[in-house]
Amino acid sequence: PESVAMTSSFWFSEDVTDDMVTKFRLNNIMYNGKSQFQRIQVIDCAPFGKTLVLDGKSQSAAGDEFVYHEALVHPAMLLHGNPKRVFIGGGGEGATAREMLRHRSVEKCIMVDLDKMVVDVSKDKLPEWGAGCWDDDRLEVYYQDAHAWLRDYKGPPFDVICMDIADPIEAGPGYVLYTEEFYRYATTQLAEGGIIVTQSGPGSLNTHEECFTVIHRTLASAFKHAVPYTVDVPSFGCTWAFTLAFNACAGAADAAAVVEMSVAATDAAIAARIGGGGSSGSSALRFYDGAAHLGMFGTPKWLRRALDAERRVMTVDNPVFMI
Amino acid sequence: PESVAMTSSFWFSEDVTDDMVTKFRLNNIMYNGKSQFQRIQVIDCAPFGKTLVLDGKSQSAAGDEFVYHEALVHPAMLLHGNPKRVFIGGGGEGATAREMLRHRSVEKCIMVDLDKMVVDVSKDKLPEWGAGCWDDDRLEVYYQDAHAWLRDYKGPPFDVICMDIADPIEAGPGYVLYTEEFYRYATTQLAEGGIIVTQSGPGSLNTHEECFTVIHRTLASAFKHAVPYTVDVPSFGCTWAFTLAFNACAGAADAAAVVEMSVAATDAAIAARIGGGGSSGSSALRFYDGAAHLGMFGTPKWLRRALDAERRVMTVDNPVFMI
Amino acid sequence: PESVAMTSSFWFSEDVTDDMVTKFRLNNIMYNGKSQFQRIQVIDCAPFGKTLVLDGKSQSAAGDEFVYHEALVHPAMLLHGNPKRVFIGGGGEGATAREMLRHRSVEKCIMVDLDKMVVDVSKDKLPEWGAGCWDDDRLEVYYQDAHAWLRDYKGPPFDVICMDIADPIEAGPGYVLYTEEFYRYATTQLAEGGIIVTQSGPGSLNTHEECFTVIHRTLASAFKHAVPYTVDVPSFGCTWAFTLAFNACAGAADAAAVVEMSVAATDAAIAARIGGGGSSGSSALRFYDGAAHLGMFGTPKWLRRALDAERRVMTVDNPVFMI
Amino acid sequence: PESVAMTSSFWFSEDVTDDMVTKFRLNNIMYNGKSQFQRIQVIDCAPFGKTLVLDGKSQSAAGDEFVYHEALVHPAMLLHGNPKRVFIGGGGEGATAREMLRHRSVEKCIMVDLDKMVVDVSKDKLPEWGAGCWDDDRLEVYYQDAHAWLRDYKGPPFDVICMDIADPIEAGPGYVLYTEEFYRYATTQLAEGGIIVTQSGPGSLNTHEECFTVIHRTLASAFKHAVPYTVDVPSFGCTWAFTLAFNACAGAADAAAVVEMSVAATDAAIAARIGGGGSSGSSALRFYDGAAHLGMFGTPKWLRRALDAERRVMTVDNPVFMI
Repeated sequence: PESVAMTSSFWFSEDVTDDMVTKFRLNNIMYNGKSQFQRIQVIDCAPFGKTLVLDGKSQSAAGDEFVYHEALVHPAMLLHGNPKRVFIGGGGEGATAREMLRHRSVEKCIMVDLDKMVVDVSKDKLPEWGAGCWDDDRLEVYYQDAHAWLRDYKGPPFDVICMDIADPIEAGPGYVLYTEEFYRYATTQLAEGGIIVTQSGPGSLNTHEECFTVIHRTLASAFKHAVPYTVDVPSFGCTWAFTLAFNACAGAADAAAVVEMSVAATDAAIAARIGGGGSSGSSALRFYDGAAHLGMFGTPKWLRRALDAERRVMTVDNPVFMI
Repeated sequence: PESVAMTSSFWFSEDVTDDMVTKFRLNNIMYNGKSQFQRIQVIDCAPFGKTLVLDGKSQSAAGDEFVYHEALVHPAMLLHGNPKRVFIGGGGEGATAREMLRHRSVEKCIMVDLDKMVVDVSKDKLPEWGAGCWDDDRLEVYYQDAHAWLRDYKGPPFDVICMDIADPIEAGPGYVLYTEEFYRYATTQLAEGGIIVTQSGPGSLNTHEECFTVIHRTLASAFKHAVPYTVDVPSFGCTWAFTLAFNACAGAADAAAVVEMSVAATDAAIAARIGGGGSSGSSALRFYDGAAHLGMFGTPKWLRRALDAERRVMTVDNPVFMI
Repeated sequence: PESVAMTSSFWFSEDVTDDMVTKFRLNNIMYNGKSQFQRIQVIDCAPFGKTLVLDGKSQSAAGDEFVYHEALVHPAMLLHGNPKRVFIGGGGEGATAREMLRHRSVEKCIMVDLDKMVVDVSKDKLPEWGAGCWDDDRLEVYYQDAHAWLRDYKGPPFDVICMDIADPIEAGPGYVLYTEEFYRYATTQLAEGGIIVTQSGPGSLNTHEECFTVIHRTLASAFKHAVPYTVDVPSFGCTWAFTLAFNACAGAADAAAVVEMSVAATDAAIAARIGGGGSSGSSALRFYDGAAHLGMFGTPKWLRRALDAERRVMTVDNPVFMI
Repeated sequence: PESVAMTSSFWFSEDVTDDMVTKFRLNNIMYNGKSQFQRIQVIDCAPFGKTLVLDGKSQSAAGDEFVYHEALVHPAMLLHGNPKRVFIGGGGEGATAREMLRHRSVEKCIMVDLDKMVVDVSKDKLPEWGAGCWDDDRLEVYYQDAHAWLRDYKGPPFDVICMDIADPIEAGPGYVLYTEEFYRYATTQLAEGGIIVTQSGPGSLNTHEECFTVIHRTLASAFKHAVPYTVDVPSFGCTWAFTLAFNACAGAADAAAVVEMSVAATDAAIAARIGGGGSSGSSALRFYDGAAHLGMFGTPKWLRRALDAERRVMTVDNPVFMI
């Protein structure tokens, strides 16, 4: 059709695996830079709009970033009874902070991202991602390795630690943030009743063993309860995985309680903790609510079998890298 | 790496939308034929193995067909208390019959597929799909238009009608099978307490309005309860949608009860109705169980909003075709 | 390798035919606009650098535009003994004018391009294409349909008419410029000894019948001698074709004489007519010289057979469109 | 269009360079095997028909193999006055032998190919390539490394040596066949007036420095005259290069004489040496004749400059590998 011809044939091609490729029609390249750490690009792609691309991999897209960020943030925040001090590892686009700061209980949100240039580009080119977060007095941002920052940190412990970082690939500096050693540091920086959550890479039938099962097993070795969940973020090319972990928390006795949380209980918690209407209230949530919670934590039988069967634990000396 | 070079660069490319393409590495083309109705191909692709391709669109792949077929069949079968007579529209590969026949209550399974050649090729090239179903005395197969067959059918009504047919695209003959008229015929062929379920096309954030919301709205106009659900079938290139509908059923009072079915209740029903161990028992299920049930029916907030907002009803005179 | 990862995976994909696609790695999109007539884009692609793209088809690329433009211009200009008044149909990038104005005999070069915006974008983004031509007093530019302009033109006739226009595709306005009717107008606007040359679309073994053989046959019906030639312009995805035609000319008695022009004769003509050194002299030519002339006009046996066998003549009422 | 949909979307994708990819629509995979040396596949692709693919790279296609094989064989054979004993290095498909045996002067054609399985597959699946050559008493085939065979050969010297082998890529065993050392052996096995010709890899503007200029420089260091030429073989994705070399030959005094060979002289030699009509006579040639000869040897100015500027000589210890 004419409209297609008129937008011409540029494509953003991303390898999901060696054997599987996703291509998005590319409308424009709006920013093309290179920081000390990585290539940084902002593109406009037809299916998902404005998209941040780091080293050739899409990080978040206007069309579905809300799914990823709501899924990452809200379950852990709500399972914790009353999160006041929260920590974000990574999160350069600002959208993770945006979601955390919706929770009225939060008094301090500390974000540590390695690459200041990602934050600067996001503020300039992706202002919708951060929304008002950059001006929120509760947010404190440091540009440093999150591992080193947490290790050296001497302040009061955190209620929720949220890891929004790149996948553990060999070239990346961040694999340490997925190791048992890091999770043990994290334990010492978590307050009683604290919860950690981390994005955990691809989670579909043909990709879940790249790193998801390993991250889950590693968290399960450092915490009493590790709860896996998945969500469909179409711009990522496959179902995406997360893991939250805790020794004890206010909202659930164990993983099974998280999985069977009633729709009413989740909806009530959202209303109470985030608030009702308005652009910053619960009506601003577009993905997450009680039913969506069941959808995320209700994992397939094959996945639970694979998680149970996984024996690899990621350590600094024995990392597992995505292929 | 050498192994990749050795398999060489053949690709199976499928358009998910005009703006989004999925490519799978192609190892081999094992069958390449053409029936009266469509091009029929069996390929071996690297990420998902042996795959049936009709008119260039993948239908089911060895690697994940179990997800699709278990998701299509078991919720409806279990929600019905005691399905004895069941009907399959389409289902040429035999895997839908395979799953239905796992239910010990089934006495008669009638399958009506337009294209005998798809069945013949499946028996020959995809014997794992049908497993033993082709030799099961309870299965009766007709090669005819399912719409005409059901309209002319004078026998006893069905407990479950399961529509496993191609998406409603303009070129295809099958769009009538998604219309309000067809669903009203179906009502007359369903026994008291009967349930209908249909595959409903793509269900992800950027594809759910192609036909899923319309099919749901159309079923909701013909039945008292229409319950949407989704599942990740990676070889389809995006999350896949289904809709089940009933006026009354043994297993749930309404849609909300389906969504919040307890893990234990589903698991108990599976054990009771499909049986315990063995290759035909419940341990043969690889995707579906109580937790997976929650995952399928726990739909995102944005999807329920879109389903509520949909006003299009598909009728014979006003069809809605996928783009 | 790291360098590839760092440039990320954007691609410019162009269909050579329905069955054959060429993809160039895309570094950047430098301009993205839309005129009254077409989508206009300037991209930077890895294999060929800065490239002008109109409606999704590459027009000329920094890396090899010199091949196309030298091949288009110099044979006709040299075969004419002493071209003083020359006409360019199309040629918006300015590179055709640049090559024509190298010929010291030229006193007036009139260029008629439909789309002023292509010229403006070229001046701004592709200044190397036009080089100094835009400031050359001998160049006069009109923004109009070349067909209408020539039809209404009342001035002195031209020595060389050079058609540098888009391929005859259905959507395009320009197919008239490939018809017998147009070539007959052209005859009336050519001076005694005048020569016409036109780009003639793809010219390789699997594409020459799309329009090349038809254009050749059409010119052969309007002129006494029509001489086909081809050249490799890699950014076009296949060998490219041209046709020059004349009733009589100073440089060659007939097509055979053009084909067997001695290397020395061509080289001497270049030296005499374009001049020796310097950036505007013959040393500035990078593709064309006596040996390259033989390479262009020495066509394969299969091509001459196909040209002889072609019976289609393009007329206003019976156009032949590229598929 | 419907016909395209019906053939579905399988593609054969080949990297021309890291930055440039060619894709052909794939109809079928007719053979898929693996020898001791390489993956061997026979495919049917839409633009060029049946195609032999070795380790993922197309070797020759039904649609244009005649161009490659005629271009490789006939210039060297005709420049030699009277070739009686000829040698083929590689040539497994049989088409090089087919073209050499057209020359009535040939009494003995020895072909040495490393991989017997390529020959066996070609005989079985590509019988048109060899035509009658496999049954021609003048042909003798050895399955061995051509380098070792020639080094150990004690028989009478050859009039023409024709190297039809894979490009010098690191993984391949055959790079030695492009080294100065090999060419010096070859000299000792050539009779007085003997000629060597070798395929020389990609020859277009953006690929000629991968190996063509090096092969030319290497031959020029071992022979008095090295003559480069190029031809368009569309299934190879870019213009293809060849080099012939001799110390003295019957047909031309030097490279310049080859380049300016008159059309009549070439056509007369073809008629005299290959014969007139019939399927094995000169009328069977579809690409090569006097005009095509000019087209091949008439190289662009930029190419001759690049050949002159090349200083790399390939030796066993200092190979140059294609990227």
